[in-house]
Amino acid sequence: MPNTFGHVYRATTFGESHGGGVGVVIDGCPPGFQLDLAAVQTWLNRRRPGQSKLSSPRQEKDQVECLSGLDGGVTLGTPLALFVRNEDQRPGDYQDMNTVFRPSHADYTTFAKYGVKSASGGGRASARETIGRVAAAAVAEQILRRELPDFRCVAYVDSVKGVRATIADPTAVTRDVVEANALRCPDATSRQSLEDIITSAQKAGDTVGGTITCVITGVPVGLGEPVFDKLEADLAKAMLSLPASKGFEIGLGFAATELFGSEHNDAFTVKDGTVRTVTNRSGGTQGGISNGEPIYFRVAFKPVSTIFKEQDTVDAQGRPVKLKPKAGRHDPCVLPRAVPMVEAMAILVIMDHWLRQEMLNRFSQKS
Amino acid sequence: MPNTFGHVYRATTFGESHGGGVGVVIDGCPPGFQLDLAAVQTWLNRRRPGQSKLSSPRQEKDQVECLSGLDGGVTLGTPLALFVRNEDQRPGDYQDMNTVFRPSHADYTTFAKYGVKSASGGGRASARETIGRVAAAAVAEQILRRELPDFRCVAYVDSVKGVRATIADPTAVTRDVVEANALRCPDATSRQSLEDIITSAQKAGDTVGGTITCVITGVPVGLGEPVFDKLEADLAKAMLSLPASKGFEIGLGFAATELFGSEHNDAFTVKDGTVRTVTNRSGGTQGGISNGEPIYFRVAFKPVSTIFKEQDTVDAQGRPVKLKPKAGRHDPCVLPRAVPMVEAMAILVIMDHWLRQEMLNRFSQKS
Amino acid sequence: MPNTFGHVYRATTFGESHGGGVGVVIDGCPPGFQLDLAAVQTWLNRRRPGQSKLSSPRQEKDQVECLSGLDGGVTLGTPLALFVRNEDQRPGDYQDMNTVFRPSHADYTTFAKYGVKSASGGGRASARETIGRVAAAAVAEQILRRELPDFRCVAYVDSVKGVRATIADPTAVTRDVVEANALRCPDATSRQSLEDIITSAQKAGDTVGGTITCVITGVPVGLGEPVFDKLEADLAKAMLSLPASKGFEIGLGFAATELFGSEHNDAFTVKDGTVRTVTNRSGGTQGGISNGEPIYFRVAFKPVSTIFKEQDTVDAQGRPVKLKPKAGRHDPCVLPRAVPMVEAMAILVIMDHWLRQEMLNRFSQKS
Amino acid sequence: MPNTFGHVYRATTFGESHGGGVGVVIDGCPPGFQLDLAAVQTWLNRRRPGQSKLSSPRQEKDQVECLSGLDGGVTLGTPLALFVRNEDQRPGDYQDMNTVFRPSHADYTTFAKYGVKSASGGGRASARETIGRVAAAAVAEQILRRELPDFRCVAYVDSVKGVRATIADPTAVTRDVVEANALRCPDATSRQSLEDIITSAQKAGDTVGGTITCVITGVPVGLGEPVFDKLEADLAKAMLSLPASKGFEIGLGFAATELFGSEHNDAFTVKDGTVRTVTNRSGGTQGGISNGEPIYFRVAFKPVSTIFKEQDTVDAQGRPVKLKPKAGRHDPCVLPRAVPMVEAMAILVIMDHWLRQEMLNRFSQKS
Repeated sequence: MPNTFGHVYRATTFGESHGGGVGVVIDGCPPGFQLDLAAVQTWLNRRRPGQSKLSSPRQEKDQVECLSGLDGGVTLGTPLALFVRNEDQRPGDYQDMNTVFRPSHADYTTFAKYGVKSASGGGRASARETIGRVAAAAVAEQILRRELPDFRCVAYVDSVKGVRATIADPTAVTRDVVEANALRCPDATSRQSLEDIITSAQKAGDTVGGTITCVITGVPVGLGEPVFDKLEADLAKAMLSLPASKGFEIGLGFAATELFGSEHNDAFTVKDGTVRTVTNRSGGTQGGISNGEPIYFRVAFKPVSTIFKEQDTVDAQGRPVKLKPKAGRHDPCVLPRAVPMVEAMAILVIMDHWLRQEMLNRFSQKS
Repeated sequence: MPNTFGHVYRATTFGESHGGGVGVVIDGCPPGFQLDLAAVQTWLNRRRPGQSKLSSPRQEKDQVECLSGLDGGVTLGTPLALFVRNEDQRPGDYQDMNTVFRPSHADYTTFAKYGVKSASGGGRASARETIGRVAAAAVAEQILRRELPDFRCVAYVDSVKGVRATIADPTAVTRDVVEANALRCPDATSRQSLEDIITSAQKAGDTVGGTITCVITGVPVGLGEPVFDKLEADLAKAMLSLPASKGFEIGLGFAATELFGSEHNDAFTVKDGTVRTVTNRSGGTQGGISNGEPIYFRVAFKPVSTIFKEQDTVDAQGRPVKLKPKAGRHDPCVLPRAVPMVEAMAILVIMDHWLRQEMLNRFSQKS
Repeated sequence: MPNTFGHVYRATTFGESHGGGVGVVIDGCPPGFQLDLAAVQTWLNRRRPGQSKLSSPRQEKDQVECLSGLDGGVTLGTPLALFVRNEDQRPGDYQDMNTVFRPSHADYTTFAKYGVKSASGGGRASARETIGRVAAAAVAEQILRRELPDFRCVAYVDSVKGVRATIADPTAVTRDVVEANALRCPDATSRQSLEDIITSAQKAGDTVGGTITCVITGVPVGLGEPVFDKLEADLAKAMLSLPASKGFEIGLGFAATELFGSEHNDAFTVKDGTVRTVTNRSGGTQGGISNGEPIYFRVAFKPVSTIFKEQDTVDAQGRPVKLKPKAGRHDPCVLPRAVPMVEAMAILVIMDHWLRQEMLNRFSQKS
Repeated sequence: MPNTFGHVYRATTFGESHGGGVGVVIDGCPPGFQLDLAAVQTWLNRRRPGQSKLSSPRQEKDQVECLSGLDGGVTLGTPLALFVRNEDQRPGDYQDMNTVFRPSHADYTTFAKYGVKSASGGGRASARETIGRVAAAAVAEQILRRELPDFRCVAYVDSVKGVRATIADPTAVTRDVVEANALRCPDATSRQSLEDIITSAQKAGDTVGGTITCVITGVPVGLGEPVFDKLEADLAKAMLSLPASKGFEIGLGFAATELFGSEHNDAFTVKDGTVRTVTNRSGGTQGGISNGEPIYFRVAFKPVSTIFKEQDTVDAQGRPVKLKPKAGRHDPCVLPRAVPMVEAMAILVIMDHWLRQEMLNRFSQKS
C-alpha cells in the first residue's frame, strides 16, 4: 500500500529511475470519459528534465503509453495503466556512488530498510518516480475540469533560497503565465534575480532550495473527511511525500500563529445567495472541509542533496570516505520541476475527495 | 475510513463532544502485553480541560474504561476498545450558537458536507474527539517503550503569538519538565512572558496561537514506507489532522530553503560501529525513512476561533447576524492541551511504521 | 483490519464473549437518517440465545446502547458506535476447558496464533461476537429499505443433518413466516421432523449441522466490483467468516456443474422495458455484478463442536487428555440462530456495494 | 480497490482481453529474493489457451516482461510490475456479439454498471484478466517455497459434469502428475471418460462445468485473521472472484452438514512434539486459523456461457434477438485452465496471510 495514493481514485505507481520504466495503475477512474492522451503527454513534458539550463540535462522523451482501461479512447471504469519506458540510462554516471552513502540522500536509509543495495541512480527515491503521479493527475484534471468547469490548480515558485517573489494576487496567476518562463515564477520583476541565485550556485557546484505556492480554485464546498482525512491533512501528506520537501502550511500557516483570533477569523457573509468568507486567512478549509474559497498552501523544498563539492561520508562497510561526484545530470534546484509535481499531488487529493463527496452528496443534498 | 488512522496499528475513533461519550477501537494491537490502564488514564488527564487558568474550565473526569481486548490485563491481539463517557454536558451554553455559523469554525462546512445541522458543541470537530487518539497512543507508547527501551516522544510549546521560547537542546527536554508547568514550555526564562500573552488575550476576550515542537528519540533506522507513506508524510498528515493546526515542518523545515546544499547536507560518520550523521538538519529522516537520529518537527496552531468579541457572520438561512458568545468554557489558547495531542499522533505514526518495519526486518536482516 | 468489514460502509466489531461487552463502530453510515433503535434491538433479540429449547439457555438481555453518531436520533455521518454489555458471565462453566484444547474449536489455533491463552468462553470465536455484525446490519437494512423500497433479505433453515425442507418458491418466503417458528424453517410439513433431529441429538449429548438459504430481492442491477470484489466473492467471504460455516454456493452452485451450458444459461428478455432473465440459475449475478434478479445462495454449517461426549484431546502442555464437558449452555445446532447472522452479513455486503455503486451511477447514468 | 487483492502482498491487476496487454503491480513483495522469471513464464504457459483440444485455440505467447522492482534479478522491496502484451487480437471474431447481450455473460451487467459498452471480447470479464493473478502467484510461490520448504499447492480436476474422479489420497497428488495430462486430472482410470464428456459436448456446440479440488500442504499453524479475514473466508472470496465459479467448500464442506458433531470433530493428538489432529475433516483450519494440517477445498465451475447453439436474448436497445455465434475460440470447459487459476488465488491468500502472521509471530512467540 505504500505505493498507492487515494481511497477512491487510487494511483499505484511503479518503476525505478534505471529499470524498464515507470508508470501508474489508476483504479477507480470513472467510466465514460473521452481521454486526451496528448494532454497527459503535455503534463509529462512539463515534469521532464532537460527543459532549460535550470534543470538536469538528462534527456528522456517520457513518451506515455496507455496499456489498459480505454476503448476507443473512452475510460471503461477498469484500471487505467499508463507507462513510460526508460531510455536515457547511463548507470556509468552513478557507478562510483554505488558503494558510498551520499549525504542527505536516501541511499543509506533505503539500504538499512530493505537490506538491498540501493539501485543505481536513486531507485524509487529518484524524481523520475513522480512520472506515475503526474500521469495520474493529468487524467484526473481532465475529468475534474469537465465536471467542475471553474476548477483550476496552479503552482508557482514563490521563493528561492529565502528570496521571495512578489505576487499581488495568487488566485490570479494562470498556468500559462507560470509555464512561460524556465523558473516557473510569475513575478517578472524578481524572476531574473531568483534565476541568478540558482545559476551562480550551480557554477559553484552547489544547490539551492525554496518554496512553492499552490492555489486551487473552483473547488466545491464540502470536500475533506474528518477526523483523519481532513483536506489539509491529505494535502500535507501529499506534499511531504514529494522528494526533497520539508514543510507545508495552509492559509496563513505559520504566520497565523502571530495573530489574535479576532485578527485571524474569517467573517461569513452571503454573496449571490452563497455563504462566503470576507477574508480567506484559513486558506479555503475549515475543520478539514473545503468552504468554497480558494485553497492555497505553501511547500518548502530543501536544496538538492547532490552537490559537486567534496563531502565526508562512509561506505557500506562503514569506512570513512571523501565523496566528490563528477559533474552528472542533476538539477541545481528542484523548484521549477517540482511545480508540476505539487500540482499533480494536489489534484490527486482533490480528485479523490471530490469522488468521496459525490457519494455523500447523494444523502446530504436530498432534503 | 476517515475515522481510522494507521495501517497495522489501526485506531478508529468515535464520539462527539456532547453525545454518550468518546472512544477508540484499536485493531492490530500486538498480543501478550500487560497493559497499564492507569498510565492510559494519566495520558487522558494530561489532555483534559480544566487543569489550569490557561485552559477551558469545562470539567470532565475523562475516566477511561476498557470494553474489550484484555484478559487479566493482557492484550489478546483482539480489538481493544477504550471508552470515556461524557459527563459535563451543558448544551445550553452553546444553544445560541446553533443557528449561526461561527467564523472560522467547522459549523458551516460540516453542515454543507453532511446536510445535518452540526451537533451542539462542535460534534466531531471538538477537541474532545482527540480522547480516542490519546488513549490509542497511550497504549502504543507502553508497547514501544518495552520493545525500544530508548524510545521517547516529547512535545512542548515552542512559541506563543510569534514569541519563541529558547531551548538550548530540544533532544534533552523531558516530559517531566514539560508537565511541571501549566504552559507546557520547558524554557523557565521566557515562560512567564508567554503565559502573560495568553492571559492578557483572554482578558480581552481574544485568543492566541503558537507553535509546538516535538522530538522523538530512540527510533530505529528504517521506519517509513516510500513513496507515499514516507515517515514525514504520515507525520504531516497526523499533525494537520489535529484541530486548529495550520502547518508542519520537519528538520530545519522552511528555514532549510535558505541554505545551500553544502550547508544543509548531513555528513555521514560512524560512531560505535553505527552509521550516524554529524549534524541533523534533516530532522531524523532521509528519503522518507528514519535514519536513527532524533526526529524533530514543528506544528503551527492558529488562534482559537471562539472569541468573545462581536463578529459578523450569517445564519443557516443566509441572513447576516452579529455574533457575540456569552463567556463559555473555551480555551484562550490551544497550545498547552495540544502538547499531548501532538505527542499522541506522533506515537501513532511511529507505532504503525514500527510494526510495518518489523515484518520487513524479517527479510532485510536475514543476509 | 481483520475486524473491519466493508469498504464504504465499514463495520469494525469488538468484544469477547466474557469481557465488558461487544459492539461495533460503523464508519461511513450515511447522514440524515432517523434511526429506529427499537428495530436494531429487534434484530439483536433474533440473534440472542435462550429463545427456545433449540438454542443455548444462556440468558443475555443484549440491550443495545448507541454511544455516538446520532443527534436527536438522526445519523450525523460520523461513526455510529453501538454497544451491548455482557451480563450473564459465568466463567466457572468453562473453567475446565481452559487448559485443554477442545476438538474442532478455535482454542488451539488461537493460542498458536497469538501466544495468549484463549479467553474463557471462546473469546472472539464465540457466536457472541456476531452481535456487532447484526447491529451494523440492522442499521443498514433500515437505510436500504428506505432507499430501495423493494429490498428484502430473508434467510431460512433449508436442511438439518442432510434432510432438506421443501420450499416451493424461495423468493416468496417472508421474514414473518421464518420468525414464526423456533427452527426458522418456512416448511410447515417437514419442520417437526427437522426439529426432532436436533432435539434427539441434544438428548444424546451430540450436535448437528445443516444448511441455510438466503434470498435477496429488490437489489438494483449493477452491484459488485470486478475483478476481486465481485458480489458473489464478497458474499462468499461474508458467509465463510461466520462461525461454523464450511461452504457457500450461489445460484445452482455445485449443482450447476452437472448441467450443459445450454441448460444452465439464463436467456435474456425484456419485461416492462427492463432487461430480465427468463430463468435465474445464475442466482442474481453475472460476471460478479447483480443483474436485477433475486440473489440467492446457500451456506453450509457444520455440527457444533461442543459435544457432551468424551473426546480425546491434548492440553496446552501437549499431554493426552480425555475431555467431557459438563452440560453447559451450548446450542445443539447453530442453524436457528445463524439465520439472522447470514442475513446480517448479506445486508452488510449489499449496503457496501450499493454505496459504492451510487458513486459510480453519477457517471454511468449521465449519458 | 476492486482490482487489488491482498493486504500486505497486494496484487493490483490491469488490462483487458483486447487492449494493449494485461499485467499486475505487486506492492509488498519482500526484498532480497533472486527471482526466477522463467518459472513465472512456466506458470503463464500453464494458464495459456491453445494447449490442447480441450481449450480455446486462441494463440498468445503470453511472454512476461518485468517492468520494475528488480535489480540484477533481485527483488528490491519496491513495486514489481509484470506485463504481458496482447498479440492475437481479432476483434472481428466478436463483432456481432457487440450489440447483443450474450446469455449468462457479463455483457449486460457490465454495461448496466459502467454505462460503457463492454469492450469486445469480454474486457475484464475475460479469463485473460487472470494473467496478472497467475504472475503474482508465481512470484509468491517462489518466496513461499524458499521460506517454507514443505509448502506445496496443488489443484486438479475433480469432476466433470457431475462425474467424479477417484483420488485415493488428495494430499499425495503432485503438480507433475496433474500437468502430465490435458485434463489436469490425476485419476488415470476415469480421465478418458471425463475428457470424452468435454469433447462430445464440444462437438455438439455445447459446454460443461465441473469441480476442482485444491490441496495446500506445508502451511504453518496460525495463518488467518479472525473475525472477518478468516483463512477460509479469504479463500472463498479468492475462488468466487474467478470467472465462472459458483461455489466453495472447505474440509468436508456441504457433506459436513450430514454428520453428528461426534462424527465430525477432529481429535487432537501429539506427534513428534507437535499438536496435530487425528482426522482432518475441518480441512486444515479451525476458527478461521490454519492448524498445520493440509488445507483442502473444492470449487464449483459452471459450464462456459459461450455456446454454439441458438439462444434467445436481447440487444442494447432491448429488442429480442436470436444469437448463434460463429464457432470462435472459446473453451468447451473451463476446468483444465482453471486449475492454475485456483492454485494462483490460493497462493495469493497464503502469501498474504503468511506475511501478516510473520509480524504477529514477533510477539506471539516471544514468551
